[in-house]
Amino acid sequence: MGDFKFMDQYKVKFLDHLKTRIEYTEPKNLYEPIRYILDLGGKRLRPILTLMTAELFGGDPDEAMDAALAIEMFHNFSLVHDDIMDDAPLRRGRTTVHEKWDLNTGILSGDAMLILAYQFFEGYPPETFKKLTALFSKTAIEVCEGQQYDVDFETRDDVTIPEYLKMIEYKTSVLVAAAMKMGAIIANASDKDAEIIYEFGRNLGIAFQLQDDYLDAFGDPKTFGKQVGGDIMENKKTFLYLKALQMAPKQRKEGLMHLYSIKPENPSTKVEAVKAIFTESGAVDLTKEEIKSHTQKAFDVLGQLTIAEANKQVLRKFGEALMERTV
Amino acid sequence: MGDFKFMDQYKVKFLDHLKTRIEYTEPKNLYEPIRYILDLGGKRLRPILTLMTAELFGGDPDEAMDAALAIEMFHNFSLVHDDIMDDAPLRRGRTTVHEKWDLNTGILSGDAMLILAYQFFEGYPPETFKKLTALFSKTAIEVCEGQQYDVDFETRDDVTIPEYLKMIEYKTSVLVAAAMKMGAIIANASDKDAEIIYEFGRNLGIAFQLQDDYLDAFGDPKTFGKQVGGDIMENKKTFLYLKALQMAPKQRKEGLMHLYSIKPENPSTKVEAVKAIFTESGAVDLTKEEIKSHTQKAFDVLGQLTIAEANKQVLRKFGEALMERTV
Repeated sequence: MGDFKFMDQYKVKFLDHLKTRIEYTEPKNLYEPIRYILDLGGKRLRPILTLMTAELFGGDPDEAMDAALAIEMFHNFSLVHDDIMDDAPLRRGRTTVHEKWDLNTGILSGDAMLILAYQFFEGYPPETFKKLTALFSKTAIEVCEGQQYDVDFETRDDVTIPEYLKMIEYKTSVLVAAAMKMGAIIANASDKDAEIIYEFGRNLGIAFQLQDDYLDAFGDPKTFGKQVGGDIMENKKTFLYLKALQMAPKQRKEGLMHLYSIKPENPSTKVEAVKAIFTESGAVDLTKEEIKSHTQKAFDVLGQLTIAEANKQVLRKFGEALMERTV
Repeated sequence: MGDFKFMDQYKVKFLDHLKTRIEYTEPKNLYEPIRYILDLGGKRLRPILTLMTAELFGGDPDEAMDAALAIEMFHNFSLVHDDIMDDAPLRRGRTTVHEKWDLNTGILSGDAMLILAYQFFEGYPPETFKKLTALFSKTAIEVCEGQQYDVDFETRDDVTIPEYLKMIEYKTSVLVAAAMKMGAIIANASDKDAEIIYEFGRNLGIAFQLQDDYLDAFGDPKTFGKQVGGDIMENKKTFLYLKALQMAPKQRKEGLMHLYSIKPENPSTKVEAVKAIFTESGAVDLTKEEIKSHTQKAFDVLGQLTIAEANKQVLRKFGEALMERTV
């Protein structure tokens, strides 16, 4: 998103706000991990979307600051608890909370973050508060359901493409969608406009996650933040994998299933073999098509929005930039 | 609470409501543990308090049903996560969630319960919704802080009595207080009355928890639900222990500290020796006095309430019954 300089301004403002609003002290063992995870950095994509959407709908981004903070707090809550569930040692190149402290600290600090997220809505008047809180709860429960499906899929051999799409929709894209809808709510957009921007975010979020699956296998190691091939090493059933299973001829399919049953010490041969099957089977092209199709769905709904054409153009450009990303 | 028949009616109604409102289906691995823990039983003291308080303030207990459910859902969320942190195999005589399923299920189902609790407030109009939700968040974060203090105290040798009282206030009594205040809010009580009933619940909650400490050591094994002496076996720093450390002469104090550093296979001699020190040091009498003093503080605030004397009498009788409990 290098050419999206205007989004950097939101990020700077947001990080300022984050600093002033997080001022917890005691008990130290509860609040230090919260500060730690929030300071680990990241793209801050979701809160930026809340601020940008508020502005595009004629609202004051400063008024959307607390909602943006709630979204970021929730996102980090889910990272802390997911890292426990995935037994992950690292997050953004730094030690995860449950590794740096312990399991109990990870659970309890995460719980506190979820509650603190709700508290950030308390500055809004009752009607807005209720709209934001209800949207937040609906989204949060879907994220939990998505995480449960993700866990369930690990031990299932019969995951279908629609099931996978529903999982990433719940686990990732509803939060992107809600982040944008909150901006619209705070800007007093009509219910219809708020619904449309939700759909925009939801489809873009699915495209974003599919892109993530693609970059994890085929990204440039120089620019991609995580270890390229990580999903393959972990035998993670991504869209690429499920599509390759569907498309590959019998023998190649069996080869892929075998490769996804082993975890060799030196994984580079395995990673290359799996990537070759992904490419030859047509799974790579079909994944790219799926990404395009969801991006297009997102763009299609923009037509119905009652905001200025220039503002729709900003959303379109944002979507394009997101799809051209290499990180 | 055997002579409190009218509270049984609330319980029956509440359990009916619980059944109709919990109708989640997929993903099974997320929702089955929630159903399981909610069906384990228990006194249902907190939701009953919400219903009773609503009625005593002239409201309709049926309208308080969803708030009562939110309170019970939150209480069970905290049990699921606390049981993980305490590595507890049993809860109410049955396998705990993380033991019956696994760690990840315990974490994720707990997270979902916390969010579901918030959703139960959505049936209330915006002003009431905001009041209830804000009170709920404030209470929930205090419960987390209380749990953190409890964890911290395990490895500290210098816990003071005021610190201990603050810990049990946060971990236990604010939820009792909030349960009652929610009933008052739903009955449209004045802010002042709502604050008074909160104080009543807070003090009664502290007395209740101190009573729990006492019964854990000196309760009748025939009527007390948990294993009598359990806290002593686990070297849990209760009010009795801290008070005995404060009161006992040097030699007895050192003896107590030694007993609290061992976990013998056959703990009965240790339990009896600790109980003897609790009694001789005067800690037992002082604990009883502390219970009485908090009960009295609860009763004292009732005078300022603007509800009928007969209704205050119900609250007084409830407090007395609670303090005479053997379970």
